[in-house]
Amino acid sequence: MGYSDTDKLAINTIRVLAADATAHANSGHPGAPMGMAPVAHVLWNKIMKFNPKNPKWLNRDRFVLSNGHACMLQYALLHLYGYALSIDDIKAFRSVDSITPGHPEAHDTPGIEVTTGPLGQGISNAVGLAMAQAHTSATFNKPGFELVNNYTYCFLGDGCLMEGVSSEASSLAGHLQLGNLIAIWDDNHITIDGDTNQAFTEDVLKRYEAYGWHTLTVGDGENDLDGIEAAIKKAQEVKDKPTLIRLTTIIGYGSKLQGTHSVHGSPLKADDIKQLKEKFGFNPEESFAVPQEVYDLCHQAASRGAAAEEEWNQLFAKYAEQYKSEHDDLVRRLKGDLPEGWEKSLPVYTPADPAVASRKLSETVLNKIYGVIPELIGGSADLTGSNLTRWKGAIDFQPPSTGLGDYTGRYIRFGVREHGMGAIMNGLAAYGTLLPYGGTFLNFVSYAAGAVRLSSLSQVRTIWVATHDSIGLGEDGPTHQPIETLAHFRAIPNMMVWRPADGNETSAAYYVALTSKHTPSIIALSRQNLPQLEGSTIERAIKGGYVLHEQEGAQITLVSTGSEVCICIDAVKELAEKHNIKARVVSIPCTEVFDVQPKDYRLSVLPDGIPSLSVEVMSTLGWERYTHEQFGLNRFGASGAYKDVYKKFEFTPEGIAKRAIATVDFWKDVPNIRSPINRAFQQII
Amino acid sequence: MGYSDTDKLAINTIRVLAADATAHANSGHPGAPMGMAPVAHVLWNKIMKFNPKNPKWLNRDRFVLSNGHACMLQYALLHLYGYALSIDDIKAFRSVDSITPGHPEAHDTPGIEVTTGPLGQGISNAVGLAMAQAHTSATFNKPGFELVNNYTYCFLGDGCLMEGVSSEASSLAGHLQLGNLIAIWDDNHITIDGDTNQAFTEDVLKRYEAYGWHTLTVGDGENDLDGIEAAIKKAQEVKDKPTLIRLTTIIGYGSKLQGTHSVHGSPLKADDIKQLKEKFGFNPEESFAVPQEVYDLCHQAASRGAAAEEEWNQLFAKYAEQYKSEHDDLVRRLKGDLPEGWEKSLPVYTPADPAVASRKLSETVLNKIYGVIPELIGGSADLTGSNLTRWKGAIDFQPPSTGLGDYTGRYIRFGVREHGMGAIMNGLAAYGTLLPYGGTFLNFVSYAAGAVRLSSLSQVRTIWVATHDSIGLGEDGPTHQPIETLAHFRAIPNMMVWRPADGNETSAAYYVALTSKHTPSIIALSRQNLPQLEGSTIERAIKGGYVLHEQEGAQITLVSTGSEVCICIDAVKELAEKHNIKARVVSIPCTEVFDVQPKDYRLSVLPDGIPSLSVEVMSTLGWERYTHEQFGLNRFGASGAYKDVYKKFEFTPEGIAKRAIATVDFWKDVPNIRSPINRAFQQII
Repeated sequence: MGYSDTDKLAINTIRVLAADATAHANSGHPGAPMGMAPVAHVLWNKIMKFNPKNPKWLNRDRFVLSNGHACMLQYALLHLYGYALSIDDIKAFRSVDSITPGHPEAHDTPGIEVTTGPLGQGISNAVGLAMAQAHTSATFNKPGFELVNNYTYCFLGDGCLMEGVSSEASSLAGHLQLGNLIAIWDDNHITIDGDTNQAFTEDVLKRYEAYGWHTLTVGDGENDLDGIEAAIKKAQEVKDKPTLIRLTTIIGYGSKLQGTHSVHGSPLKADDIKQLKEKFGFNPEESFAVPQEVYDLCHQAASRGAAAEEEWNQLFAKYAEQYKSEHDDLVRRLKGDLPEGWEKSLPVYTPADPAVASRKLSETVLNKIYGVIPELIGGSADLTGSNLTRWKGAIDFQPPSTGLGDYTGRYIRFGVREHGMGAIMNGLAAYGTLLPYGGTFLNFVSYAAGAVRLSSLSQVRTIWVATHDSIGLGEDGPTHQPIETLAHFRAIPNMMVWRPADGNETSAAYYVALTSKHTPSIIALSRQNLPQLEGSTIERAIKGGYVLHEQEGAQITLVSTGSEVCICIDAVKELAEKHNIKARVVSIPCTEVFDVQPKDYRLSVLPDGIPSLSVEVMSTLGWERYTHEQFGLNRFGASGAYKDVYKKFEFTPEGIAKRAIATVDFWKDVPNIRSPINRAFQQII
Repeated sequence: MGYSDTDKLAINTIRVLAADATAHANSGHPGAPMGMAPVAHVLWNKIMKFNPKNPKWLNRDRFVLSNGHACMLQYALLHLYGYALSIDDIKAFRSVDSITPGHPEAHDTPGIEVTTGPLGQGISNAVGLAMAQAHTSATFNKPGFELVNNYTYCFLGDGCLMEGVSSEASSLAGHLQLGNLIAIWDDNHITIDGDTNQAFTEDVLKRYEAYGWHTLTVGDGENDLDGIEAAIKKAQEVKDKPTLIRLTTIIGYGSKLQGTHSVHGSPLKADDIKQLKEKFGFNPEESFAVPQEVYDLCHQAASRGAAAEEEWNQLFAKYAEQYKSEHDDLVRRLKGDLPEGWEKSLPVYTPADPAVASRKLSETVLNKIYGVIPELIGGSADLTGSNLTRWKGAIDFQPPSTGLGDYTGRYIRFGVREHGMGAIMNGLAAYGTLLPYGGTFLNFVSYAAGAVRLSSLSQVRTIWVATHDSIGLGEDGPTHQPIETLAHFRAIPNMMVWRPADGNETSAAYYVALTSKHTPSIIALSRQNLPQLEGSTIERAIKGGYVLHEQEGAQITLVSTGSEVCICIDAVKELAEKHNIKARVVSIPCTEVFDVQPKDYRLSVLPDGIPSLSVEVMSTLGWERYTHEQFGLNRFGASGAYKDVYKKFEFTPEGIAKRAIATVDFWKDVPNIRSPINRAFQQII
């Protein structure tokens, strides 16, 4: 306690930097950084434990700016405390190829833990980070070795609190009793449309108490630095509940327009910045000025962090002596590497093995690998028995007091909260010690679309176990049958969408998903049984696409995925026996992976000279990229036994043969048929 | 009050029908129907006002089954009360082409108000239905003419309460003081994974009180029929708050496995059904048996509803005499027709008009048409000033006590709640008197993906005003720049995705969106200014795609949408002047609409004989359907001034020309180039 004039100067430096940077960029959000500068200073300067020279130190406190539009606050802090973010980077705010983009991006900027901006995501990521901390400390801490004891701090605004994803994650955080999570609500009563009384009049603290959170209030977030510090310390003391601190602030504090929505998303005018600098004792003629004593004050705090890491390193070295295997395991995990030889545990199949639903094949993979990949942690959005995401004997990740599990548990009961689950997985992955997966029906991964695209953008390794992947789910009907879903996710950059056709392809999907350190995956899995295919191997399938069934003199290539591949194999017989047409079959379990294979390989799979037909029971959108003709379902499905539904839409050997014949006929007069693999120019990727 | 043995028999009939139907289908959810049969009976038999012979009567009470998997409950009720749903339809439960699919679908089954099953949607639709009621009554009721005074009743389960979309909609419902909304929570303590204590231990009633709801509890939902009735009547009396009734039930009541998750989603075994029937006095040898006195009891209630409608019809006839224009307006709205001549209000542009952002052009449309289309009601998810969704002088839809508007208001402050907004729009549209629109950034329509696909499936007319539609939004950066978004929504059946290039195309988009009674639309609009194009007209654009710039002897067709069309026009000049290449330009503002034009028209737009190149600044996925080559962005964008971002990715006349040259070159040796419009066979649509 006890704040000096230098503290106040540091706070005002943040405000002035935010005003300067947004004015310079002629774009951005000065209001929240100016209003939250005091709490940011208290938290970073007096409380948080971090080392700017090593932003990846395991036991650092995590800081999440859920109201990511306020990123000039975070960039200012990163700069002041000595992260690799220079004043020139601040000047480049919101300009092309800078490390200071319009919203914080974790993969580009040192010190940014998670990518935020889309509202509600950051606080949900923070729940994931806190869960990861709880699990990692329960797993690795030993008597005398409190290796992992960091907190997760999160700033969030009214917008984050209105978004459903934060409700989902917050409810779960309360259930999980995450005492290591401290969220600070920027209660400035302003959103873009104006006063929050237009749409947001609920009692937020009461709601969070209903979730099982501890709540606190600081009435003067601009001046009561002692109060802020006291509240955060009080929050730290509550070990069995996350805390929400309601911090009343004035948006754009210091501006002539403070307290209005005019300062939310537009730079201050020149005369306003002038008076701001004069009021705070800055030279109005200077921009991006940081007083040396402010740097000194911040670097002092950073030095304490560096010292703390040094102390921790010594502790960790001792830990290595006593707990070598745990130490080595942790070191390995932090590199993102899997244990050597883990892949030998992947199941391999031959055509003699019985037909099994690919969701069940996925369950077999999980049962085989959970023991050799201890960082694997996952669960389901209340569809465990359908997604088959739980290995035998798994311990649930639960507060011990529930009697249902403990924090070493690796099975998460997410509840019916797909979007929250997606955002939490992003947080779990960002922590550094875990490899998360989550199950739901493929159709309901769409509920989490906001989190899914951020997995891709922030380059984290998360895995969706997306079962019931088509009209093949049958009776549940069109409300549950994906049509647009694969097209949607295939269109996301840096996202692998897998749709394996059998056991070997399922193993391949997991192999690539687990070993791709910077790419998330969605594995689409069938409810219905699928035979083990002749010609499928893990080695072939990990290329994303391959020739499953070759045929000399073939007149057509059938290209398919997942549960339709085996029907294509039957169609080959139908075509040969009844129509004297020779067909070959290509399986493309993952277009994203196939796309990056060498062109000559891709052309060997989808060659020139013969026409091709894609077969997949959902939207054909996108298959034109690989095939000349497309058989799919550009309408909603139907409720009924799955075989009846497949028959209704003619996804039968006969239905495929009919369209294959039409394809051969339609292309017979075209000389030198060109494979769609051939392109006039390279795409920007 | 006072329930007879026949009431109990009616309740048990529902239970037995649910058991029989799920057993017969060998699929489905018997548990919730059996547990909720008592409250369903009380509500439908003693309280709700409806006429099964006219499921579209305006002033009927609305019933929403948010836990849609319990649909055998609703089908049983529809059958017992005399809707056009026979016992054979019940027997056809979950079979192909039945009107009793696995989850309730509004467009197919009489008496189903909204399509439910995806959890959290129904309760959010119910908020929309209640808002529509509040608005319609405030607008049309007159002294002595309480034309519209219906309630909206909604059943929901734990799953619905966990989903974020319901949190969003419920918070807004509390703010809006919707006393006409009564929700009944099936508190059976069971979800698919087992006891709710695994993931859902929040205090739900406290949370709803925090939202501003009135809450009630009925402790014995299986036997306390008087208590249920009293609670609903008490809820009706609270006029300024929605009510949530916590009704404790026993899932699968009557089954040997009652109270366990085994009865949630699997049919009862034969011996269990046998003992159930014996216990309830049914013949265990009979299936689908309905005692005549149960039909009689239910038909009596239905008759009361028919009489109520008859009385209402007389009131409405008198209303016609005193308030002819209001009467005619209401009759017209209920048919889904727009006022005659409304389209004359659509703005028309010439190339002499200034360049304007299409979000601004959209604002102009709204300002021109709001006066002539009184059923138009809409708002924004807290981005009013960015989406430009509010016409000048609009009154906000608000409880009068807030002093911010009243219930006749047609501008809705949705708050930062995109998914809630989407689901609420579905409810607003389903009510029958309104035509809703909602604004957000295109990228955040994805947050509402769950509701968006249900708009399409349930065939309602909703309009998304989706601004900031590309990397052209500039500085906000990749977190806000759509890449996969258009591919996602274009892949949804029965969804129009519009991306207008200028003023006339914006008017065309609104024209088709507003006049398509059974199809929702997403209108993607630019942040940046766009010139008014030579060659664009409303008449051409309403075909979804047209030749904007024809060119004799053209060597390439440039195909584009939205903000890239004008760059293509510049590329034509670049190609002609610097490279001696003749290019024509096609604008396809809406592929869904273009696809249903006659083939000869489509071939005239995208003819055989020359290659084509699509140009759109996002994922190219799907453009292979229309063009030979594709220029797009299969990676995330960048934060910076929009012109810098366009330049970075070469979306300039020069960048397009470069790829056009490559395209011409690549296709020059191919004889008889075939337009992608030509297909070997018809798709299933």
